[in-house]
Amino acid sequence: MTKAYKTLETRFRRMNVLSDIGSMLHWDMAAIMPDGGANARSEQLATLDVMENELINAADLGDLIEDAGNEGLDEWQQANLGEMKRAWVHGTAVPAELVEKMSLAETRCEVAWRSARADNDFKGLLPKLQEVLDLSIEAGHAKAAALGTSVYDALLDQYDPMMRSERIDSLFSDLEDFLPSYTAEVIERQKSEDAPVAPTGPFPVEIQNSVGLDLMKAVGFDFDHGRLDISHHPFCGGIPDDVRITTRYDENDFTSAIMGVLHETGHAMYERGLPSDWRGQLVGKARGMTMHESQSLLVEMQACRSEEFLTYAGPMFEKAFGGNAKAWDAANLHRLYTRVEPGLIRVDADEVTYPAHVILRYRLERALIEGDMKLADLPGAWNEMMQKLLGITPPDDRNGCLQDIHWPSGAWGYFPTYTLGAMAAAQIFAAAKEACPEIPGALAQGNFGPLMGWLGQNIHSQASSRSTDDILHAATGKVLGIDAFKSHIINRYGQ
Amino acid sequence: MTKAYKTLETRFRRMNVLSDIGSMLHWDMAAIMPDGGANARSEQLATLDVMENELINAADLGDLIEDAGNEGLDEWQQANLGEMKRAWVHGTAVPAELVEKMSLAETRCEVAWRSARADNDFKGLLPKLQEVLDLSIEAGHAKAAALGTSVYDALLDQYDPMMRSERIDSLFSDLEDFLPSYTAEVIERQKSEDAPVAPTGPFPVEIQNSVGLDLMKAVGFDFDHGRLDISHHPFCGGIPDDVRITTRYDENDFTSAIMGVLHETGHAMYERGLPSDWRGQLVGKARGMTMHESQSLLVEMQACRSEEFLTYAGPMFEKAFGGNAKAWDAANLHRLYTRVEPGLIRVDADEVTYPAHVILRYRLERALIEGDMKLADLPGAWNEMMQKLLGITPPDDRNGCLQDIHWPSGAWGYFPTYTLGAMAAAQIFAAAKEACPEIPGALAQGNFGPLMGWLGQNIHSQASSRSTDDILHAATGKVLGIDAFKSHIINRYGQ
Repeated sequence: MTKAYKTLETRFRRMNVLSDIGSMLHWDMAAIMPDGGANARSEQLATLDVMENELINAADLGDLIEDAGNEGLDEWQQANLGEMKRAWVHGTAVPAELVEKMSLAETRCEVAWRSARADNDFKGLLPKLQEVLDLSIEAGHAKAAALGTSVYDALLDQYDPMMRSERIDSLFSDLEDFLPSYTAEVIERQKSEDAPVAPTGPFPVEIQNSVGLDLMKAVGFDFDHGRLDISHHPFCGGIPDDVRITTRYDENDFTSAIMGVLHETGHAMYERGLPSDWRGQLVGKARGMTMHESQSLLVEMQACRSEEFLTYAGPMFEKAFGGNAKAWDAANLHRLYTRVEPGLIRVDADEVTYPAHVILRYRLERALIEGDMKLADLPGAWNEMMQKLLGITPPDDRNGCLQDIHWPSGAWGYFPTYTLGAMAAAQIFAAAKEACPEIPGALAQGNFGPLMGWLGQNIHSQASSRSTDDILHAATGKVLGIDAFKSHIINRYGQ
Repeated sequence: MTKAYKTLETRFRRMNVLSDIGSMLHWDMAAIMPDGGANARSEQLATLDVMENELINAADLGDLIEDAGNEGLDEWQQANLGEMKRAWVHGTAVPAELVEKMSLAETRCEVAWRSARADNDFKGLLPKLQEVLDLSIEAGHAKAAALGTSVYDALLDQYDPMMRSERIDSLFSDLEDFLPSYTAEVIERQKSEDAPVAPTGPFPVEIQNSVGLDLMKAVGFDFDHGRLDISHHPFCGGIPDDVRITTRYDENDFTSAIMGVLHETGHAMYERGLPSDWRGQLVGKARGMTMHESQSLLVEMQACRSEEFLTYAGPMFEKAFGGNAKAWDAANLHRLYTRVEPGLIRVDADEVTYPAHVILRYRLERALIEGDMKLADLPGAWNEMMQKLLGITPPDDRNGCLQDIHWPSGAWGYFPTYTLGAMAAAQIFAAAKEACPEIPGALAQGNFGPLMGWLGQNIHSQASSRSTDDILHAATGKVLGIDAFKSHIINRYGQ
């Protein structure tokens, strides 16, 4: 009865294995591979991409997808078929040769970026980055034709299915109506108050690591199915049954690593909560990067910077790091973590100034993709827009346009999902607390059970069975908007 | 002019990438993967095997190999074609379904072996190990038919091309004419002498690690192309451009980890010394496991347990670990490292008793493969033969038939290569010293340059361009025999 569909499941399961293998090799490359392994690794990743591309380009796949549509599938099978079709449209749009070129160029560029960033050498990176950009534009054109979208929207659709820049423009414009003046107001008020007491370091790496591991356990991370390691740019990699998260340590700043770990743990919990019955099928995968980012920000920003959680974390930090007890007082920590200050580094930004970092990247990458700006002009344009949006100018490219791995690794169209994710996080957390009023009290005990239970049921286990907006609507009563985010900011920063 | 040959090169390069990826994933599984990742990893490794098998089973491959034979290839291309043909005969003999079953069963059994060994639970492992054995026999039968050999020889041929059990029987019988009585004699004499002074621990893991890293550097290991990590069973994995060696630490015994590291470094140097012009082609790969083991044993046993090298290592160890200075005296260390004592664990055995461990495994695995013994009877047969060959009986299976990873991971026919490798190591080291008399003096300075230079030229860079015997004959003037090994043992232990 479902012969074509079952054939598709087998085919896509193999594609998924190849993509899972790529995830493991990518994690290895970022976390532990010696530099001299880069060329061989590039070839490995490129070969996996080519083989996955060959599978999606099988001559009979389109017919199988059409036939399966008439096989009386159940709801999840239908959704799975829909995802297969989406993958097929994306995958067949780009010729195999281009896929291989992209993979090679991206791996090469990502490796080069690591040293270029350390050496503050944008010019050295430029030829490799130009190659990645050109190939991304070429692929974007091909996908745009297949999807009937603009080139930028075609790239965006890879990370956030069905999201379009028109909608982003509108959401970001709502944000811009509110944030700049509100930010200035908060900064002004915080200036007039006594500064919170900063815990003084150094914070030994081993202790940071051990606190991070304890907090991961508290959130519910299962170390039988994952690891915590170190990489230049923290990320959540691996696969649902073997989630590899990474962080980086700074002995003068414990917050960066620990909040980073909590952030990636949010991603990891989403992966682990995906329905195991649908492992290896597209419908069983996470629903795009906006939803993924909502889960990391929900843990890091909504839950772990809440006053409730800090009453639990404060004593824990004090025990681990010692020093001035006043600094570890929950109210003081809360004031510290709600400190708003424009900074150069996106990943270190507070949640009030963070959207400006994303808006900057969104505008610059659109200009680069749409041909309105030359890549060689990026450092100047970056610094100018930083000045305009945040009132500060990076002293060098290391603290400017070289700080992120996304563009060197070919992830154009990815950045907006961070801020869309922040909006979704606020919306989901508000709904969770309304549905389970015990969540804040539990967090104050370091108990993430009620929160994770609700998320598991309403978000994680939904996987890709419906669109982001449909999942949000079912869980929160609304499609994605800025209201909850705005209320959250006002509640937290408006005291 | 070489169209068919070039097509073959492309095909085999892709197969090699898949096999390289498998190596990386296998290393990850053994060194760092959380247990919960096992099922997904099994599927990944099985899929790689299946895809490699599909490539070797391509309908036109036999014709391409035949056509390429008429294309006027140069010497290395011809050798490469010969290796392709060998791989094709091995690869087409076994049906894809069986390959997948084997890969799944082996990965499952290897993971189960880790806990079975810790729990001393042979019965718990039995069903999984039986499955691996049955599938190996099935594959062996298929290969035996294609190669025109016995089932055991077909399995052996996977690890040591062209080696046959008839020749092993003859070499091992030469060994048995000499070793047992000689071993008894050495033990008797050592008993009558004052015991050497043993360095006293504990030897902290971090210091062992740092000494190991220093020694790897001295041998010439390039950390830009490799790593040292920890695993249950030390091994050399990864790929020539990213060699991953592992060790395990015991705080009461620094020799085991450090000599293990030197052993694996010998393997690693071979991999690194393979000709980079032939990366990704079969002719560019190591020439079987006998040759591979000769390189690890040459570094560990021939070079690093020599009196000359110990005059360098002694002060280095003393500086690192401190304690009784007498223990670190080179002459004392040499007496310590030439101590002969029958033991239960193969990897801890001295070089005089080691062959008995291998002869035991060789006989038992032949009996299992040829159906002369039931797997359930293995623990009893193992203990009986240990008593017969070494005069001791394991108190439990952890120290008996559960100690090695080889059988659980499906490597039947592998064990003989350890002792064949020990013979080759002695033969090669003797020839190297004859050709470069400065080698021992350099080792006394911790300088491996002359030795590695000679090995690079005469062994490593030869890769698979000729047979093991041809490479040995060109390098040492003789095919593989026991004479050099016998002389080495008598020279070292006959004082």
